Amino acid sequence: MKDFIFENKTKIIFGEDKVELIGKELRKGNIKKVLLVYGRNSIKKTGLYDRIINSLKNKNIDFVELSGVKPNPILSKVQEGINIAKDNNVKGILAVGGGSVIDSSKAIAAGFYHNGDIWEAFEKKSKITKALPIYTILTLSATGSEMNGNAVVTNDQTNQKWDFFSKKVYPQVSIIDPKIQSTLPKKQTINGAVDTISHVMEFYFDPTKNTMIQDEISEGIIRTVMKSTEKLLQDENDYESRAELCWSSTLALNGLLSTGKMGGDWSSHMIEHSVSAIHDISHGEGLAIVFPAWLKYIQDDGVEKLDRFAEKIFGIDTGNPKFDAELGITALKDWYRKIGQPVSFSEIKITKEQLIKIAENASQIAPFGKMKKLDYKEILEILNIAY
Amino acid sequence: MKDFIFENKTKIIFGEDKVELIGKELRKGNIKKVLLVYGRNSIKKTGLYDRIINSLKNKNIDFVELSGVKPNPILSKVQEGINIAKDNNVKGILAVGGGSVIDSSKAIAAGFYHNGDIWEAFEKKSKITKALPIYTILTLSATGSEMNGNAVVTNDQTNQKWDFFSKKVYPQVSIIDPKIQSTLPKKQTINGAVDTISHVMEFYFDPTKNTMIQDEISEGIIRTVMKSTEKLLQDENDYESRAELCWSSTLALNGLLSTGKMGGDWSSHMIEHSVSAIHDISHGEGLAIVFPAWLKYIQDDGVEKLDRFAEKIFGIDTGNPKFDAELGITALKDWYRKIGQPVSFSEIKITKEQLIKIAENASQIAPFGKMKKLDYKEILEILNIAY
Repeated sequence: MKDFIFENKTKIIFGEDKVELIGKELRKGNIKKVLLVYGRNSIKKTGLYDRIINSLKNKNIDFVELSGVKPNPILSKVQEGINIAKDNNVKGILAVGGGSVIDSSKAIAAGFYHNGDIWEAFEKKSKITKALPIYTILTLSATGSEMNGNAVVTNDQTNQKWDFFSKKVYPQVSIIDPKIQSTLPKKQTINGAVDTISHVMEFYFDPTKNTMIQDEISEGIIRTVMKSTEKLLQDENDYESRAELCWSSTLALNGLLSTGKMGGDWSSHMIEHSVSAIHDISHGEGLAIVFPAWLKYIQDDGVEKLDRFAEKIFGIDTGNPKFDAELGITALKDWYRKIGQPVSFSEIKITKEQLIKIAENASQIAPFGKMKKLDYKEILEILNIAY
Repeated sequence: MKDFIFENKTKIIFGEDKVELIGKELRKGNIKKVLLVYGRNSIKKTGLYDRIINSLKNKNIDFVELSGVKPNPILSKVQEGINIAKDNNVKGILAVGGGSVIDSSKAIAAGFYHNGDIWEAFEKKSKITKALPIYTILTLSATGSEMNGNAVVTNDQTNQKWDFFSKKVYPQVSIIDPKIQSTLPKKQTINGAVDTISHVMEFYFDPTKNTMIQDEISEGIIRTVMKSTEKLLQDENDYESRAELCWSSTLALNGLLSTGKMGGDWSSHMIEHSVSAIHDISHGEGLAIVFPAWLKYIQDDGVEKLDRFAEKIFGIDTGNPKFDAELGITALKDWYRKIGQPVSFSEIKITKEQLIKIAENASQIAPFGKMKKLDYKEILEILNIAY
């Protein structure tokens, strides 16, 4: 186990009909004017928008709005948000949505105080020293953004889907109400589940040894996500399974699983970001294609962990570690296929030629990876495995 | 799953040779004078005391001392600490020790600002509204006190071993250096392991349904604690196993396992507190005796969970849930015996007559328990099962 620091000050309010607490929480934080950030009109259709506005009005909290944040959020929208926030002198951000809305809100919150272009933080050219306080109401459990300091945004001028991390952008309070996710299209629930499992696996397949406690918790989260997802595909109104999925998703990327590790591998995420920066597919679909291919690529070096993975997640134990490692990867692909995800690029009509463009895009931030260092050549090889 | 709020702002610094960071952390918190609280002279013998004092001096942090905190900490010592803290106008508490020292420090930190006797907080007659900031250097992983708001202290006038919880007494920073625990007597490592497992079980056997994610994590912690303890009994200098045990112990009672539950059962802890308030045995020994007896007592109502426990922890699965539940309890007792714990009152020479006194003491705060409500009669019955 590696040395580590664990610190996470986000307050989580979890449960049915907790949305109405948002006004009270903002008041407690002495925030009287917010920028309300959201995506599409679905929050108006479901009534969520009205519930939030009523809660704000009841507590005399002023607000201005930024709507239209897209699933793969873009920098120009962030910049629009920064301008609105500055023009209206807001005191905080209220993000209502999934990862794209919350990540955009983090960039706006940091950009509010940043001299110059906030993209510099994504380029790691400048450090975030201050940010507006962020409050979130989660509508899609997937990225874990509701309880961490990460943000991923695509620069729509350069097609770079990059990320930053800052202690300053952890949400103050996140409200996770599983019930409001029951209206999600099935496809989004599935994408969220794949994203969650991928976060766990990024840490699980980090090469650090002697991390039994982290591995045990990782396996527990993956098993819970798989079981809950299968149940939700039968009945999207199954509140208990939704609650299991939601809380598992938050725990997968709130710092708990990175304790004692080298920080996770993250190659699959880096590669996928380039896939969805160039092709308009969801992050969850991209991960279902890329992650098993990356596992294949590291298979020989990762036999021990893959063997364990196969046994603990799928009950595979023939006694031959190499064979079990192979079977484990196949079982993961089979499970993704079973819940309706694509598992190859050919299925989603991405051509071999396009893979070159993806590899070029990804190699801008290469080399990356802990299990194996990846550069252009290796990235392209993984993309071809995923073809 | 029940609704819940999760919030834990303690910063954990975990790893080898991290003790020296204490001066820097206190400086960051702008604390220039502390009350240094510790137990016996062992921290002087091992050199830990000098390392801490050097770190404080290097950062120009003044300190006064309270030493001699006992394993079952007492109220009169807390009151002594409050007086020293007030007389010297300290700005924070630095607790160096295990649960007894940290719990005493919490009571001192709250007592510093409390009008009247701090015992009122244990009696739940008054609420803690303010406390001095607490910093800890953990020397024995067991109680989880380094990352929560709980404190247990014995009133040495009335023989009541009671507890309080307050959000105000979560440590600001806790340094967990597994290496400094390698000098612990084996008995203390064992007691810590039993205490940790007991904390997990208090939540695990709470009657809330549909808590797969919490149960998975609980089982993972118990398996890790058992494996690490067995390895440490072979070699107390096995750093990796010590690290696993330390971090598992913190996670067992930092709020993670109580999410979505009814708060845990806690009957075994309540009863054990009366055992160790009256008889000078360690909390870990008391729990090894009381917990399996309580499990026997709730066996018929808890078959489903006990059956799962037997399978997930001990690999017991005969296909007969009732039988497996029984075998699981026996396996737990066997494991406690194997690591050298007593599992009955007769072994430690507590008489049947003395059990009456323990039951009377415990029933002062009865009824308690979630699986089954316990009062004097039921408590005595459990004590007799444990005889």
